[in-house]
Amino acid sequence: MKRGIVIMKKITVLGSGSWGSTLANILAENDYEVCLYGIEEDVAAEINNLQTNSKYLANFKFSKPITATTDLAEAVKDASGILFVIPTAAIVSVSKQLKPLLSTANNPILMSATKGIEPGTKRIVSQIIEQEFDKSVVDNMVVISGPSHAENASQKDLTTLSVASYNEENAKTVQQMFTRDYVRLYTNSDPIGVEVGGAIKNVLALAAGMIAGKGYEINALAALITRGIRELALVGEALGGQKETFYGLSGIGDLIVTASSSNSRNWRAGKQLAEGKSLDDVVNNMGMVVEGVKTAQAVHELAEELNLDLPISEAVYRVLYEQTEVEVEITNMMHRPLKREFQ
Amino acid sequence: MKRGIVIMKKITVLGSGSWGSTLANILAENDYEVCLYGIEEDVAAEINNLQTNSKYLANFKFSKPITATTDLAEAVKDASGILFVIPTAAIVSVSKQLKPLLSTANNPILMSATKGIEPGTKRIVSQIIEQEFDKSVVDNMVVISGPSHAENASQKDLTTLSVASYNEENAKTVQQMFTRDYVRLYTNSDPIGVEVGGAIKNVLALAAGMIAGKGYEINALAALITRGIRELALVGEALGGQKETFYGLSGIGDLIVTASSSNSRNWRAGKQLAEGKSLDDVVNNMGMVVEGVKTAQAVHELAEELNLDLPISEAVYRVLYEQTEVEVEITNMMHRPLKREFQ
Repeated sequence: MKRGIVIMKKITVLGSGSWGSTLANILAENDYEVCLYGIEEDVAAEINNLQTNSKYLANFKFSKPITATTDLAEAVKDASGILFVIPTAAIVSVSKQLKPLLSTANNPILMSATKGIEPGTKRIVSQIIEQEFDKSVVDNMVVISGPSHAENASQKDLTTLSVASYNEENAKTVQQMFTRDYVRLYTNSDPIGVEVGGAIKNVLALAAGMIAGKGYEINALAALITRGIRELALVGEALGGQKETFYGLSGIGDLIVTASSSNSRNWRAGKQLAEGKSLDDVVNNMGMVVEGVKTAQAVHELAEELNLDLPISEAVYRVLYEQTEVEVEITNMMHRPLKREFQ
Repeated sequence: MKRGIVIMKKITVLGSGSWGSTLANILAENDYEVCLYGIEEDVAAEINNLQTNSKYLANFKFSKPITATTDLAEAVKDASGILFVIPTAAIVSVSKQLKPLLSTANNPILMSATKGIEPGTKRIVSQIIEQEFDKSVVDNMVVISGPSHAENASQKDLTTLSVASYNEENAKTVQQMFTRDYVRLYTNSDPIGVEVGGAIKNVLALAAGMIAGKGYEINALAALITRGIRELALVGEALGGQKETFYGLSGIGDLIVTASSSNSRNWRAGKQLAEGKSLDDVVNNMGMVVEGVKTAQAVHELAEELNLDLPISEAVYRVLYEQTEVEVEITNMMHRPLKREFQ
């Protein structure tokens, strides 16, 4: 299964949003032939005509020409690599369409940069894909995650990513594929942990927005991140990830970015909730999926099933689904019994 | 050695700067009799007359009356607790003055919230104190550290702290002593790790200022913190701390605060260096000690002695002491051989 860099000619990126476009651009800069697939005709047309994607990335132009299409068959034909960056909710339908088309591709490495947990089933992306394809596909798949706002990475902010796979050779290939002067990747052998961290960190991003909405500042944010990562690690270990992964780029690294920036939808949603808006209003006004809202429910169910002590995540759940007040939750949390830092 | 809360009447805080005043205020709010010792007559007079400390804390007034003095003997007489919050460089001289005075105190718990490494000897505060008093004093001492800008804590931002001691009973006493609705403390049994984290994080704060000075943003900062904490843990373990401590409040928590805020002198110094100012100019203009500058040297010496791989800390050292360019260091760092995230 060893693949030389030489034959990695055409890479297909599924998903023409901000992160898909940014990753596509990095590949184009590294001289791959890049085809970007998305369902929006106007976005594809703008990319083909102007090499910009103004709907999802302001002040951005692809560094080298790429092509975009809404035709999945055309997109994946002869592809040596296929990267999922579509919303979690679209993984099943795109996978079903993709499966019969793979015979026309060039024995591609499958990659995923989609972060999320499927509502209801609580499956992460690789588990959804495994059900649509088969286990060997997932065993060779490479998951890409790390502290990376697309808006910043597309402007060449220094960006680090974990590339995780059970197949180390594939992880190394993908590592080389995306390495640029402003992008540095580290291989990792815990794809489950990398995926889980990316998915559940959004619950803590909601919490970060909530404390900001109440006027708390950097001491409070640092406390939230430091105590919160422990909750994330507890849930993540229960889901099969390894503890150290949650203290790495795809865990606390991604959390720092998501919890510190108004670029994060989840952060903005948390802030608006703390300011008194209703959950319905917040979600409807956002116009885009606020993944942490569903994830908070999944994490709550896990906490109950597995008897995990997750004070921050549970407070977020209660604010979202039991209409408790943020300030009351903070007061209760500060008055919990005094304890050791590490048990 | 068990001490009831009842007899903990008078607490002496040594050091009338911003953090000393903030901690003194928390104690006063908890109904302790607080005496604040400092060497500046004008600061002591202002505290006694107006209950403010405008030189070190803007828009701040003590919640309940405290007294201030420049007379160490008066300060510690009948004290049940003595808290060091003076600069590292003053620990030796104050300890020498304090030793003969302790007989007039009320069998006090010694505490330290001073962060730093002594230039030259590379001793942390507890090691300096151990030499001036004796080992049993240090074994019973309680170290206080965590993500806590004084400016924010004094305005009642939610603030978490580790209270670390080999004497768990003392740690619990101090935990109760400072607990407020906006201050939550966790006991910890690794005082060395807590102290070391607080001391050496400033090297990474310099690095954070440097990347900000070059215009890099949140992806880069999160990468720096996530990869940097691994360096801090390597050094800290070599100095006798426990790994998990560096991923807690006094480690990565404190680092997040220090590396994210222009309130940090080290961050500001790093930014000015990246903008082209000379080290001499930066240090002289700051008017206060930039602890990370000396600490970077100590960390560099440790890296050489112990053969530790610390790319970020070493880059900071070279910018400070070998006048290399920040941008060149970043380029070199991004072009290091590709590797695994966890070894």
